[in-house]
Amino acid sequence: MTTTVACAQLALHVGDVAANLAAAEEAIEAAANAGARVVVLPELTNSGYVFESPAEARALAEPVDGPTVAAWSAAARRHGVTLVAGLAELDDDGQVRNSAVVIDPTGAVRAVYRKAHLFGTEKEFFVPGDERPPVVDIDGVGRVGVMVCYDLEFPEWVRLAALAGTDLLCAPVNWPLFPRPEGERPAEAVRVQADAAVNRMYVAACDRAGDERGVRWTGGSIITDPDGFPLAGRTPTDGPALLLASCDLPQSRDKRLGAHNDVFGDRRPELYGD
Amino acid sequence: MTTTVACAQLALHVGDVAANLAAAEEAIEAAANAGARVVVLPELTNSGYVFESPAEARALAEPVDGPTVAAWSAAARRHGVTLVAGLAELDDDGQVRNSAVVIDPTGAVRAVYRKAHLFGTEKEFFVPGDERPPVVDIDGVGRVGVMVCYDLEFPEWVRLAALAGTDLLCAPVNWPLFPRPEGERPAEAVRVQADAAVNRMYVAACDRAGDERGVRWTGGSIITDPDGFPLAGRTPTDGPALLLASCDLPQSRDKRLGAHNDVFGDRRPELYGD
Repeated sequence: MTTTVACAQLALHVGDVAANLAAAEEAIEAAANAGARVVVLPELTNSGYVFESPAEARALAEPVDGPTVAAWSAAARRHGVTLVAGLAELDDDGQVRNSAVVIDPTGAVRAVYRKAHLFGTEKEFFVPGDERPPVVDIDGVGRVGVMVCYDLEFPEWVRLAALAGTDLLCAPVNWPLFPRPEGERPAEAVRVQADAAVNRMYVAACDRAGDERGVRWTGGSIITDPDGFPLAGRTPTDGPALLLASCDLPQSRDKRLGAHNDVFGDRRPELYGD
Repeated sequence: MTTTVACAQLALHVGDVAANLAAAEEAIEAAANAGARVVVLPELTNSGYVFESPAEARALAEPVDGPTVAAWSAAARRHGVTLVAGLAELDDDGQVRNSAVVIDPTGAVRAVYRKAHLFGTEKEFFVPGDERPPVVDIDGVGRVGVMVCYDLEFPEWVRLAALAGTDLLCAPVNWPLFPRPEGERPAEAVRVQADAAVNRMYVAACDRAGDERGVRWTGGSIITDPDGFPLAGRTPTDGPALLLASCDLPQSRDKRLGAHNDVFGDRRPELYGD
């Protein structure tokens, strides 16, 4: 059984909630029409990323039962896809979070994850999450794990998601463009490859395109197989892009590496603790 | 202060201890002549890798105070280099280990590390180590950490070495050649890049070249900077090779990432435990 996984790399605009929603809805439809059963959108797809102030971030944050997630749910249901998307969230306690939702093909919000490792100036705008990455078992798809951007750079965190049974780790990201040597893949994408390989699971990271208030995005969305090789997104795309990859997700449940190894079984957790 | 680090990728021959020692001595001299202050040799440089039986591995294993390490120490002293090399070791309890030694420029053996994560059929030949990767402070160089091959694929292990203060992680490896998509770097090298980047430290992995009893080696030696980009070894070399990289090792003590982040400080260890 293979599942088509999509990353819908979008050019969003900070503060333009209606345009961002329209871009998301259009991308979900295009991905579904191309056969995708799982669609990943970027980090902070409702709001954009480069806030000028905490007040601006707060003004753009929405509760999970707000209009953006309602529209995403309707789109997921309409197109019969599982959707993982980043959200500037106003939580029940009035705190602003850098979150991601997992919405199943019935439109139900199955998980809300709050980014635990905040990057750059995000600490001014968001309260970090304290809960581990959730893993949602979706009928006919498999176990979808979720985390957000900089979280991917903490292998401890990725390992927790893997040990919790993730078949496909979906990560909304916004990777600012950093210089890199000619011919090199973005370092963020390389880390995704390693995240996939050391845990033998699929990873789909959906990046932004374009720029926003002087920040240029990498456009480095990538979908990797359990060997850590890219199925889509081998090179960054300078603009919106729809990445599609056919993934044999049950492969992620086989942690064997050749005839003699198992990437989970070979761990020595008794040696790793404090 | 920059330090030239070398990986001396060798074609070794299982069982031919004299030829292997000669190849190592020649490579150490060549590296030193090219300005190297740290020289990394492959895994199991004394013995070769593809054993036919546990008896063969045992017969080739040597104590740390045996002739091969004595000769390596003399070469390190003669050329004034720090040497990290893989050794089939017969330990004091008569157990056979897949080890690596760290020898300083005075010729002193400063650490013996025993591979904790055994790959493939190694479990038939070696007893795994139970001690964490050592970090050796070498005058005029910095803090040299060491682990062996498959250890690099356990990010928990790499993190321990990094948290213990490693400036330069030296890893003797023997990477069997696996198929990979056209244009892709070997997955093992990609994992080294990620190991370096998430810990912001230099990593030098020294691979084998050639083949041995039907096993083809990748020739994928790589030296990466703390951003995870290769300074040497961007593509595998089909044969012996001397990789050299000028490394500003104190950079590894700065874990900041831009103005707002710190790859150690941003960890959430309270969320990672059992």
